[in-house]
Amino acid sequence: MSYKAPLKDMLFNIEHLARIEEIAKMPGFEDANLETAQAVLEECAKFNEGVVAPLNVPGDRNPSALKDGVVSTTPGFADAFRQFAEGGWQGLQHPQDFGGQGLPKTIGAACGEMLNSANLSFALCPLLTDGAIEALLTAGSDELKAIYLENLVSGKWTGTMNLTEPQAGSDLSLVRTRAEPQPDGTYRVFGTKIYITYGEHDMAENIVHLVLARVVGAPEGVKGISLFVVPKFMVNADGSLGARNDVHCVSIEHKMGIKASPTAVLQYGDHGGAVGYLVGEENRGLEYMFIMMNAARYAVGVQGIAIAERAYQKAVQYARDRVQSRPVDGSMNAAAPIIHHPDVRRMLMTMRATTEGCRAMAAVAAAAYDAAHHHPDAAVRKQNQAFYEFLVPLVKGYSTEMSLEVTSLGVQVHGGMGFIEETGAAQYYRDAKILTIYEGTTAIQANDLVGRKTARDGGQGARAIAAQVEVTEGELARSGSADAKAVLKRLAAARQAFLDVVDYMAGQAKASPNGVYAGSVPYLMLAGNLVAGWQMARALLVAEAAAARGEDVAFMQAKVATARFYADHILSRAPGTRDAIVEGADSVTSLALEAF
Amino acid sequence: MSYKAPLKDMLFNIEHLARIEEIAKMPGFEDANLETAQAVLEECAKFNEGVVAPLNVPGDRNPSALKDGVVSTTPGFADAFRQFAEGGWQGLQHPQDFGGQGLPKTIGAACGEMLNSANLSFALCPLLTDGAIEALLTAGSDELKAIYLENLVSGKWTGTMNLTEPQAGSDLSLVRTRAEPQPDGTYRVFGTKIYITYGEHDMAENIVHLVLARVVGAPEGVKGISLFVVPKFMVNADGSLGARNDVHCVSIEHKMGIKASPTAVLQYGDHGGAVGYLVGEENRGLEYMFIMMNAARYAVGVQGIAIAERAYQKAVQYARDRVQSRPVDGSMNAAAPIIHHPDVRRMLMTMRATTEGCRAMAAVAAAAYDAAHHHPDAAVRKQNQAFYEFLVPLVKGYSTEMSLEVTSLGVQVHGGMGFIEETGAAQYYRDAKILTIYEGTTAIQANDLVGRKTARDGGQGARAIAAQVEVTEGELARSGSADAKAVLKRLAAARQAFLDVVDYMAGQAKASPNGVYAGSVPYLMLAGNLVAGWQMARALLVAEAAAARGEDVAFMQAKVATARFYADHILSRAPGTRDAIVEGADSVTSLALEAF
Repeated sequence: MSYKAPLKDMLFNIEHLARIEEIAKMPGFEDANLETAQAVLEECAKFNEGVVAPLNVPGDRNPSALKDGVVSTTPGFADAFRQFAEGGWQGLQHPQDFGGQGLPKTIGAACGEMLNSANLSFALCPLLTDGAIEALLTAGSDELKAIYLENLVSGKWTGTMNLTEPQAGSDLSLVRTRAEPQPDGTYRVFGTKIYITYGEHDMAENIVHLVLARVVGAPEGVKGISLFVVPKFMVNADGSLGARNDVHCVSIEHKMGIKASPTAVLQYGDHGGAVGYLVGEENRGLEYMFIMMNAARYAVGVQGIAIAERAYQKAVQYARDRVQSRPVDGSMNAAAPIIHHPDVRRMLMTMRATTEGCRAMAAVAAAAYDAAHHHPDAAVRKQNQAFYEFLVPLVKGYSTEMSLEVTSLGVQVHGGMGFIEETGAAQYYRDAKILTIYEGTTAIQANDLVGRKTARDGGQGARAIAAQVEVTEGELARSGSADAKAVLKRLAAARQAFLDVVDYMAGQAKASPNGVYAGSVPYLMLAGNLVAGWQMARALLVAEAAAARGEDVAFMQAKVATARFYADHILSRAPGTRDAIVEGADSVTSLALEAF
Repeated sequence: MSYKAPLKDMLFNIEHLARIEEIAKMPGFEDANLETAQAVLEECAKFNEGVVAPLNVPGDRNPSALKDGVVSTTPGFADAFRQFAEGGWQGLQHPQDFGGQGLPKTIGAACGEMLNSANLSFALCPLLTDGAIEALLTAGSDELKAIYLENLVSGKWTGTMNLTEPQAGSDLSLVRTRAEPQPDGTYRVFGTKIYITYGEHDMAENIVHLVLARVVGAPEGVKGISLFVVPKFMVNADGSLGARNDVHCVSIEHKMGIKASPTAVLQYGDHGGAVGYLVGEENRGLEYMFIMMNAARYAVGVQGIAIAERAYQKAVQYARDRVQSRPVDGSMNAAAPIIHHPDVRRMLMTMRATTEGCRAMAAVAAAAYDAAHHHPDAAVRKQNQAFYEFLVPLVKGYSTEMSLEVTSLGVQVHGGMGFIEETGAAQYYRDAKILTIYEGTTAIQANDLVGRKTARDGGQGARAIAAQVEVTEGELARSGSADAKAVLKRLAAARQAFLDVVDYMAGQAKASPNGVYAGSVPYLMLAGNLVAGWQMARALLVAEAAAARGEDVAFMQAKVATARFYADHILSRAPGTRDAIVEGADSVTSLALEAF
């Protein structure tokens, strides 16, 4: 089997870090207890291991292809997507009103990880559909909801996000696609959109494009952008499909990775205008799009965890099988499987600890999302919303940046074999590189973290998180084990480094914007490192206690060892990052422009 | 122009850090002064920019291909290689006795960087030939030298290194290829060799394979390995080519990068045995091979610098052209080229500082090599040899590991465009990943650093380097500028971190081999970081003085800014690395094997 879902680790997080039993007390989540989580995850693992994972290599070798405006996906994808839809997986987290299962994100995120580990390219289609559903749920009229939601939630149709244009990438104020109002209340959309994931494909009957465009006469910049639904096929009053709309795929990109996922250039309105339907109000498009984006950003963070897990599993397998050199400690008299060599262990542990740390962070973020939406107490909802929003750029930015390190180590463990495409490790390395770019580059996530999440409230939210970390430090001190002490040392140092940087960010944001933004990505990495390390510390406390009770001792000891490794080898990077940010801002921008 | 050689930076290093005028005082290098260096580098730049660089993208799109045992390289490669040979570039560093130019490595290394920046795949052919020349010069009989050297040095023939077999990669004790002695003093060679770079191609008349094999009856392990010359075509007494030898290319690999460079599987002896000639004495093959390897390891380090430089140049170009978002400091009222954004500057500066730091380290290593071979004083030769040998794993390991970070940032600067293959940034990312693997993985370099270069002499050589760093710290303190002070702070901290680790490595090597080797790669990274940062500090002192004298002020100020950035943002990682090594050894190996 090429992929085995890490069910135990996921359920550990769901039970002990995300605390599903607390979530199950919230209105609407009554059935979402640990037992449900376990049943859903097991079913999900079976589907992804058996059906989706085997399509990952074929997708890379035989990618989506465009011919005469029609995109054919890799053989097997359409059938797997049909099974995905039939299994109800698209609707997992969506409201029961529209045919979904209404499960918490705490469960949904784990399922999302499995799908993405199994096949990043395949998983992108539902990922984008989730975003479209989210936007329609939030801002769509009842009519739009009635027409589109059920078919999106069931996986009968799929969704896309159309933001980027050749001149407008990170900077959406430059969007030029235009929408002309029609007497019947619809719009005609004209323009070119690029990098549209699954913008055209053969896996579903219809594609529902969510498109940013400017209504003629709208203000310049981001305040003049509206959001439209533009279906590939018009939908008749009875729900059946009508005429082809005027949106066409004119090319797909030749990419370094995620090759099976068609990345389309879509041309709107070359034959009179694509019929579009306004979502919400005019000129509030960016606001709605951020709803989709925030869901998608979290999901892309999970993609980082997912590809890291897959790369880790492959590397472990190879390290067990490949025999080369005697152990340095003289413990064996002949060449040994390379997993016996300390540096291979260091690489595997780095991969493992990073993946588990990011997974734990994502699980806790998901729980906060669930509480922010379902907790009966408004104050608790608000607090969780703030926590979730702080974590989204970390889940996205940190997990994906770390996935580059993990997939690179994955190739490295394989030695020369890693560089040969047949082996498969190289695909993860190539696939992962898009994750730090799409749905907002790491720099865009960091801007969000610095501007909206830290400077805006003077660092208050950030310091509240540090205070929670300190509570965990107290628990580590009380535990008193050697592992807890070692973790405590690194966690306290990382928290202090984080607080120094938060003070710097909040204090200098107005006086020295260049200095602050020069440190934005390192700050994101430091914050992500701290939060992931903190969750590993919490996991260590749980695991030590469980092991002491004799519960699942091998698993719990492994968790302790991994948490310790995380602290020793990854959290220990934090103080250096602080120094670079707080004392190194000037040298980022001091080189004269013409000297580059 | 897709590549512009960084002549100024190279000549700065050659003049001020490698001190070419000292080298020109040594016997045999009388003509190798700064003027010569400049003339050679300018000519080299012209050739590589004009002829070799334009073949880099075509090589990726239309790689080498095998058909009926014949490898066709990318169109244009054979012609470019002919020009390379005619220009005398293969013989640059080789003895005049065999038609070379006998120039110092200090000049040769800079030329090597240009060739590799221009085209990593192309450059591999001469890189391997250099290794074959080196081995024959050191251990070949006069007869072998007479037959092979002149044609290798002229670039009429090319060379290969045949080490790896399917079961023997990092662990050469597992080599099985066998050599049967013949009555005429030759051997018949039988076996399979894999990963043979340019093992078969159409760019030269003959290919001279240097092959590790076991003479029948030889001892087991590395002590029974001998080195053989196996030509593709036999060479007649008059020097003309004779019959085809029994070595054949049976396949070439489908790789993630360096696609134009054919990576061959060679089959020896399927038709009666390949005729081989013993190099030196039986059973000393590994020793000779290490001569080739050491030359090749240094050269692969230069490849890391080269690909980093190329990625940097491309990223700068894109950052100047791409217009997106207003500057955060409000300095412009409209969207600006992204080079104005602090995080883009951070990425570009990281790429630049890393590349310059590694280049400076390599230049100083080259000068040590030259002094080790040409200085009239034996004690000075010995001292330089020790310094060079300490630096080889750093040049190889650190420069190539850092090239992964640099090429990844190169893609990142391009945003979505970076992931599209047409852009070209992705090729550098894919190409670079082999550099941390071939000619000894980073772990193999780190084993060398820990075992032979640190533990063996109880850390004496390492501490001698730290003492030299301290001298530079004294100079920084005397300079007293704000930049010098900032660099001093980081350099002193990094040196102290290095010394702590050296004590640990030297002290624990016997008592705790697992603990020591668990930190081997981090130690290599720390040592490389320190030496590169130290050279940047030396460069800063030179540049401050020159700028104060009004010499080339813009360049010198840029050097100061880059050195400062290196210290603030890269050298500042050193103490964290120390902590991970010295305090984190246990957690590398504590996870139970079955828990992975």
